[in-house]
Amino acid sequence: MTGTAQNERILISAPGKVILFGEHSVVYQKTAVAASLGLKSYLFFEKRKDDLIQLVLPDVGIERNWRLSEIPLRFDYPDSDTRHPNDMPTELKARLVELSGPTIKDSQIQALMAFLYLLIIMESKAEKPLVHGLTVCVRSFLPVSAGLGSSASYSVAIATALLLLNNKIPFDFNSRSDRELYLETINTYAFKAEEVIHGNPSGVDNAIATFGGAKTFMRGEGFATLEGFKSLRLLLTNTKVPRSTSALVAGVSVKRKKYPEIVEPILDSMHGIAIRCRDAFKKLQNEELDTESLMDEIEDLVTLNHCLLDGLGVSHPSLEKVRSITAQSGLKTKLTGAGGGGCAVTFIRDDVSQELINQVMLKLQLEGFDCYQTSVGGTGADAVMLNKDETDKWLLEASRETLEKYF
Amino acid sequence: MTGTAQNERILISAPGKVILFGEHSVVYQKTAVAASLGLKSYLFFEKRKDDLIQLVLPDVGIERNWRLSEIPLRFDYPDSDTRHPNDMPTELKARLVELSGPTIKDSQIQALMAFLYLLIIMESKAEKPLVHGLTVCVRSFLPVSAGLGSSASYSVAIATALLLLNNKIPFDFNSRSDRELYLETINTYAFKAEEVIHGNPSGVDNAIATFGGAKTFMRGEGFATLEGFKSLRLLLTNTKVPRSTSALVAGVSVKRKKYPEIVEPILDSMHGIAIRCRDAFKKLQNEELDTESLMDEIEDLVTLNHCLLDGLGVSHPSLEKVRSITAQSGLKTKLTGAGGGGCAVTFIRDDVSQELINQVMLKLQLEGFDCYQTSVGGTGADAVMLNKDETDKWLLEASRETLEKYF
Repeated sequence: MTGTAQNERILISAPGKVILFGEHSVVYQKTAVAASLGLKSYLFFEKRKDDLIQLVLPDVGIERNWRLSEIPLRFDYPDSDTRHPNDMPTELKARLVELSGPTIKDSQIQALMAFLYLLIIMESKAEKPLVHGLTVCVRSFLPVSAGLGSSASYSVAIATALLLLNNKIPFDFNSRSDRELYLETINTYAFKAEEVIHGNPSGVDNAIATFGGAKTFMRGEGFATLEGFKSLRLLLTNTKVPRSTSALVAGVSVKRKKYPEIVEPILDSMHGIAIRCRDAFKKLQNEELDTESLMDEIEDLVTLNHCLLDGLGVSHPSLEKVRSITAQSGLKTKLTGAGGGGCAVTFIRDDVSQELINQVMLKLQLEGFDCYQTSVGGTGADAVMLNKDETDKWLLEASRETLEKYF
Repeated sequence: MTGTAQNERILISAPGKVILFGEHSVVYQKTAVAASLGLKSYLFFEKRKDDLIQLVLPDVGIERNWRLSEIPLRFDYPDSDTRHPNDMPTELKARLVELSGPTIKDSQIQALMAFLYLLIIMESKAEKPLVHGLTVCVRSFLPVSAGLGSSASYSVAIATALLLLNNKIPFDFNSRSDRELYLETINTYAFKAEEVIHGNPSGVDNAIATFGGAKTFMRGEGFATLEGFKSLRLLLTNTKVPRSTSALVAGVSVKRKKYPEIVEPILDSMHGIAIRCRDAFKKLQNEELDTESLMDEIEDLVTLNHCLLDGLGVSHPSLEKVRSITAQSGLKTKLTGAGGGGCAVTFIRDDVSQELINQVMLKLQLEGFDCYQTSVGGTGADAVMLNKDETDKWLLEASRETLEKYF
């Protein structure tokens, strides 16, 4: 297995995720559809000549340097595969908290803890101890706390980097015939990191950030690859209106209890929408549906799902504004995630001109929204070798467009 | 029975109707709720000293004078009660078409035909032939072809006038203990007029214009009085966007055929909304629900129903604009009728100030919409005696507010 030689620089990318259909109804055992988002996290990784472990996370405002000797890399932790990180030995936990400190924001501690935890569980089982340090720098183009899987994207990126460091996967894992096995390994470790960050994650976000494409999922039933999923163009608009996911989920729960005869059928309809999306791509794959008809269906499903969510009270004037602006150009929009603000996705048919897209984006930006032209359903985790010139400083300054060209 | 003495002037009013819940789903055997609308038609009625039958309908641009001798008032038509007007004797139909001519718009012919038909079927059975003429002048404050039952309101008004002329009902029918019987009579004749106008009407519109209040109805099952219905304040906004009811109904039918697993539950949910509205008023009557809670429910149902209709594709940017403007002041709006433009109803809680209502109305008017502050669920057909000073000319010039004060 080819690892990364000393002084090799690697760029890793891992996508975010977006819920296409079934937010909220998924809470009530209905099917949802999520897909990888073209907005990604990018990780620069390089072995160092000194003994420093350097972690640079500009998006969460962190730059840390630890000496190898500070970190309990050879910690005796044989059952790390089966234990939940919450149940890690007290002694280890105390040490990780200490290394993550001094007291900082929860989100910063979580990012540091996830990295250190993965590093230790891998190194504790490594044949050879780590003698040189490394630099890891991660940049993310994913809005945080927006339901776009930014933490999973980070988790997948660090898992990939540390597996490369330990020669558990080759840097060109995506070109190998046993690609799926490597991705499974990445996903397993990424899930561990997600457990450190979220406690009890569903595993959907990291699976999508690892494998790419789209997945259907249902509470208690796990998730399944959505066969035949075709990458779709999308505008992602962040209204930047803050909201509380738990309050929105609770609001729907209150409505369902108060109006079961009205809300239950709405949830059934949402389930129908997700299933219909799944079946449409299957039909596309089996050539029972052409691309044009698929686009028509997606547009219908987007409108239907958004209106049902609006009925449940989880839209917001800002989201309706996005819907109305895009509708003026014939584009269909739905909220994505919890709603009540946050993000909206606007589906872009193949035949829509770049000129029209630019006009719509300008209108949305003039309303104060952040707007990204991107795609869903693309590849998951990926890695490329960099030139010597491309350092962690280069990563910090590179534009999204520049970075996207590497993959 | 006290009829109208020579020279008495009578003012009759008959409300429009508005669908509160269940438009479109009613096509698929689901329950809908309709209620009388505070916007009404007003009919001025006076016996004349000469032999002219004068019909003045300024809203449809008609002013007609017939001599009594021109109209086949004693036409031998004993089975008029049981025959559909479409099946009237050929000879009679030819004469009515001739009297309605020369060639004018369909809506004008229908209004004239309905009046003449009612006049003839009543007079043909009258004990004494009519020897003096009459003046009938009708003004309507209901937008036409807007799903607001303007024709039923007209039909009820002319039926009431002609029943008064024939001493079949007293002018103070609403104060009599056998009120319901008189209303039944009015409704029976109004339905005949509706048959002349529409061919095969459901009978809901004329029942509401006659009896007032609210009714639930279901295709093939007829309609029922919604017990305990409380008159509610409302803004009625006419977007003035023209639309085709049949095209909108067809659009929903196409969606239902294409996406049964999504659309059937939406129709079920709409049914649940109508039933919930019915039950809420029953509970109010039984003191199981207070007014405040009823208002909360109505607001929820308005939002839910509108969003479901939007999902089915029958909203319109103009309707969304009304929804957005009223939402800024915390008011809930839904489209009413077929959608795709037309009218929207905005529910006004008891505690909303007149100042706020005025502000909202101003905003809506600035968008170019017609906006009426009115109510639903008020009384149906009614009649009052006028002073000698109040002529048909007075009716033509009176404001809506002036006329509303008479009832």
